[in-house]
Amino acid sequence: MKKTALIMAGGKGERFWPKSRKSCPKQFLSITGDGKTMIQLTVERILPMVDMEDIYVATNRDYRELVREQLPQLPEENILCEPVGRNTAPCIGLGAAHIARKYPDAVMLVLASDHLIQKPEVFRQDLERACQVAEDGENLVTLGIQPTYPETGYGYICHEKEPAYPEAHAYPVERFVEKPDRETAERYLASGHYLWNSGMFIWKVSTIQAKMAQYMPEAAKGLKIIQDAIGTPEQEAVLDREFRNLPSESVDYGIMEKADHIYTIPGDFGWDDVGSWLAVERIRPADSQGNVLEGNVVAVNTSRSTIQGGKKLIAAVGLENMIVVDTEDAILICSKNHAGEIKKVLEELRNRDCLEYL
Amino acid sequence: MKKTALIMAGGKGERFWPKSRKSCPKQFLSITGDGKTMIQLTVERILPMVDMEDIYVATNRDYRELVREQLPQLPEENILCEPVGRNTAPCIGLGAAHIARKYPDAVMLVLASDHLIQKPEVFRQDLERACQVAEDGENLVTLGIQPTYPETGYGYICHEKEPAYPEAHAYPVERFVEKPDRETAERYLASGHYLWNSGMFIWKVSTIQAKMAQYMPEAAKGLKIIQDAIGTPEQEAVLDREFRNLPSESVDYGIMEKADHIYTIPGDFGWDDVGSWLAVERIRPADSQGNVLEGNVVAVNTSRSTIQGGKKLIAAVGLENMIVVDTEDAILICSKNHAGEIKKVLEELRNRDCLEYL
Repeated sequence: MKKTALIMAGGKGERFWPKSRKSCPKQFLSITGDGKTMIQLTVERILPMVDMEDIYVATNRDYRELVREQLPQLPEENILCEPVGRNTAPCIGLGAAHIARKYPDAVMLVLASDHLIQKPEVFRQDLERACQVAEDGENLVTLGIQPTYPETGYGYICHEKEPAYPEAHAYPVERFVEKPDRETAERYLASGHYLWNSGMFIWKVSTIQAKMAQYMPEAAKGLKIIQDAIGTPEQEAVLDREFRNLPSESVDYGIMEKADHIYTIPGDFGWDDVGSWLAVERIRPADSQGNVLEGNVVAVNTSRSTIQGGKKLIAAVGLENMIVVDTEDAILICSKNHAGEIKKVLEELRNRDCLEYL
Repeated sequence: MKKTALIMAGGKGERFWPKSRKSCPKQFLSITGDGKTMIQLTVERILPMVDMEDIYVATNRDYRELVREQLPQLPEENILCEPVGRNTAPCIGLGAAHIARKYPDAVMLVLASDHLIQKPEVFRQDLERACQVAEDGENLVTLGIQPTYPETGYGYICHEKEPAYPEAHAYPVERFVEKPDRETAERYLASGHYLWNSGMFIWKVSTIQAKMAQYMPEAAKGLKIIQDAIGTPEQEAVLDREFRNLPSESVDYGIMEKADHIYTIPGDFGWDDVGSWLAVERIRPADSQGNVLEGNVVAVNTSRSTIQGGKKLIAAVGLENMIVVDTEDAILICSKNHAGEIKKVLEELRNRDCLEYL
């Protein structure tokens, strides 16, 4: 079975400001502190099952150079630059178009570039199982995440009680549900057959292309034109023209919620989407006061706080439930209860035309 | 009437860290933001009534150069350097010794170097009144401050209901009281005859020397030896030897609480001791959210907070009741309710031998 992968790396990572910047968003940073960037870890994690030359990275033109620098082994032509952002369905379609030209029958792993996976062996085992299910007929497989707490920030996958592929631990998906409120999330957690939607997919290239033709026929047409131009002198010009006309649509909404033969494999591989600074306390050990302190920090009477110091000494006195992130030119001081409002800082900076901080 | 002044400028200003440092404490900083340092403002304020050559500054050797730089008109010999800190009584005794050699009958104003006074004309008027009272017999006069809220951080002066010198608005002092609890402070405020103890005194040099001989005879002996050596080649050596042996005592405890003929003049000249970062919100106008923001700051959903930005952008999200002070090498992030614990940061820095931040 030929295995290929598409790594989606076009995100802006605004919720990780001020470390994540427009010029170098989260996927190109080392958030876990081991020196490797998130996209490097993503590639490293799948290299035991996918050859480097079969890995594709979808990003935008601003980040081509970063991908090149951080993944020097990746073939140049495997960096796919979307001319504009059009959400995940067109992005996946573009990846499928490139892979289909070489291996129309390959299995394609669709992965995020900025997720943390603490048990890569378990992750690969689940991917292998997903590949087996994906090989069968026209199945679409998604990796679900066994929830560990009633998170309200993720979509959920509701699956049937009995696995359709017992050996692969794959369950038929009943439905995808939007981010729930707290009470609903608690019900999902207790029910035992709701999973977090990780946004990682496994399918045959031919299958996803067929489904796209069925559920997003206009997009499929444009993608076919793009595919046919690959390797010709018009490749870039055609991409530029056609991609803009594709609808901005997520693959969840455009295909997964509509198609049949959707399966999910409940994963328990230490996944975290590292979606905001709140993630740090989940992935790093806290001290006895519940603090995660790093760098040049003196903390007095401070609890349940995440402080990422830089060169400057940070003296924290009487802080509770706070996030502090220092960088060369900006420092964020944010109540954990308001972590969702970091984007408002970026809005304000845009209003003030302080673009150097974005 | 000859008027002289002693400005006490030996404080460490630790509660104003990180702006106030061991190498440049609060009195040598511009806290009010008008460019002039607190000690410069202190001198400027009394120049209409005291000649520059009759102003003495008591400090320690580390700050001699700062005084010289910031007060270039001050005669070199008027900078009195205490070899060690011995609280206010020996400091005042040293000032009195120097003044007594030139003008034994002069009136001496004893002033802090790091207080804010927003109505200097009113202040000078009260000082003139105090000088009149001080000229009479062996009176000791202290400027009290009409309290405007039930502050628990100051000592209070309880005075009699009827003024002894009606024209000078001077009341006999009944007693000095320590920092009260909240309830007591409210009672003091309501009573109408309690004043804040500002630590500013007015008396004749001869009077304070006589009182010191009476209530602190050992100290007075040492100070007399120091006084006799002034202008001789042994001046510094004698000071060095004798000053160390003086008891560490405040003038309040050593003399004011024991002596008779103590008068107070209730002052209403916009006084603030600028005793901690909490003072900033008292002396600067707040915005509609109750914030006092200065410098490079973006605030989202932030209220009742004081932020003093520096070069680095400070993004504040969801802060409430916080103090943030940025400097070149350190940033303080402190809950207003814990402002008293800033000293613990300095302790910790000493423990870690990070002396460069002190």
